[in-house]
Amino acid sequence: MIIIGELINATRKKVGEALKARDAGFFTSLACAQDEAGADVIDVNAGADPSTELEDMRWAIGVVQEATAKPLAIDSPSPTVLRAGLESHQGKARPMLNSVTLEADRLESVAALAVEFQTQVVALAMGEAGMPCGQADRVHNAKRLIDELTARGVAPEDIFVDPVITPVSTDPTNGGAILGAIRQIRDYSPQGHVTCGLSNISFGLPERKLVNRTFLALALGAGLDSAIMDPLDREIMAVVYAAEALLGRDDFCMNYVMASREGKL
Amino acid sequence: MIIIGELINATRKKVGEALKARDAGFFTSLACAQDEAGADVIDVNAGADPSTELEDMRWAIGVVQEATAKPLAIDSPSPTVLRAGLESHQGKARPMLNSVTLEADRLESVAALAVEFQTQVVALAMGEAGMPCGQADRVHNAKRLIDELTARGVAPEDIFVDPVITPVSTDPTNGGAILGAIRQIRDYSPQGHVTCGLSNISFGLPERKLVNRTFLALALGAGLDSAIMDPLDREIMAVVYAAEALLGRDDFCMNYVMASREGKL
Repeated sequence: MIIIGELINATRKKVGEALKARDAGFFTSLACAQDEAGADVIDVNAGADPSTELEDMRWAIGVVQEATAKPLAIDSPSPTVLRAGLESHQGKARPMLNSVTLEADRLESVAALAVEFQTQVVALAMGEAGMPCGQADRVHNAKRLIDELTARGVAPEDIFVDPVITPVSTDPTNGGAILGAIRQIRDYSPQGHVTCGLSNISFGLPERKLVNRTFLALALGAGLDSAIMDPLDREIMAVVYAAEALLGRDDFCMNYVMASREGKL
Repeated sequence: MIIIGELINATRKKVGEALKARDAGFFTSLACAQDEAGADVIDVNAGADPSTELEDMRWAIGVVQEATAKPLAIDSPSPTVLRAGLESHQGKARPMLNSVTLEADRLESVAALAVEFQTQVVALAMGEAGMPCGQADRVHNAKRLIDELTARGVAPEDIFVDPVITPVSTDPTNGGAILGAIRQIRDYSPQGHVTCGLSNISFGLPERKLVNRTFLALALGAGLDSAIMDPLDREIMAVVYAAEALLGRDDFCMNYVMASREGKL
């Protein structure tokens, strides 16, 4: 699976402070730690302060790409900030844009950037009116996103649909709706990817990490092949290794056994 | 889900010794501990020594039903031993027979016992030639078992099909084959149940409990609604609570939140 390391996110207090202070060491260590822990992509969100986000993103991309050769996910709702991030990006690894939605201006701008810079792109299955509700709504939005993006020249295999995770504590049907949507989205675009930001699922519940990692196993079983998550959380990474072996994506369990030998489980 | 507590199994060394010594206290404490930990059914296997299994089963059933009001699963490949267990059984809770297979004599005898004593029954999807191989073989055996048992008067809702767990370490496709079989068996008999003895899945791997509980989450997502497992394993029980909430089988996460308050997660 493709793990997008979520920790460099300036809406988190410590990261926002380090960004403001231009604390390169803090960003470097977060990037290296996630890289070593098994992240395939390093997310970079510089959205602590909208008035400085563009300059902040340029700086953060510069620092993080010095620290890791892994691809970066440039994370902002603003196409202008995404462009600034892409222009600062110099790595050989193809970057990812996080994210596009069906909102008309954003869709046009981000699709154009994805094609111009040949990036991968996270597509959030939000409706034009906001958060999706239920399985059918998520699938409808996801299909439209895939259709609109491919019509503009984005390759299906470069699209990472995020079905949008809503808490199971507020509606007991949310889990099943998301899992069902994952299955349908994979059926609709088998060469595409399905990712998600996991942690919203456990909002409002105790022992949130237990809920998150159990949901990750369920989602992987439903066809998820990527997640935006904390690769420094050993227990969730252990579930990733075990689930990959159990789903036949780790021949003869070599990665699992190696992770055990390295003390990662 | 319906948890069948697996610990009273005389093929385990300590249980076999306690059985031989007629150590009622040992059996009582294993029964009570599993009952309190959330087992819905208490399995009783007295198969330490074939020459004394029948008497051993009578004694064990007597002791265990004094200790718990939960239904018992009478566990033996021998229809004669199953009958002896049933005749010793006096609880009001309907017992379960563990297990029947397609082997002709065993099928006839166990089906007759299930009807005579109005029990539930675990149906192992073994082929007439032995262990099943792949998804199609499991589904074929399971359908035949359901058909043969219902033809003899067993109600579909009293049948717990076990797709037969084989290790993922010996064949990386085993996990997917079992999960796919669970889905198909549920589709074939929606009012029936699917259970399994979990622990074989991790044979040959390190950190077996991690593999077992991750597989349990995957299997619950595929439609499993019962398992033969160790209810004293806190971590696997925590996955049960989390998965039930995530799959919409725990309204407003009440059981999950209660388990957290009781320190069970």
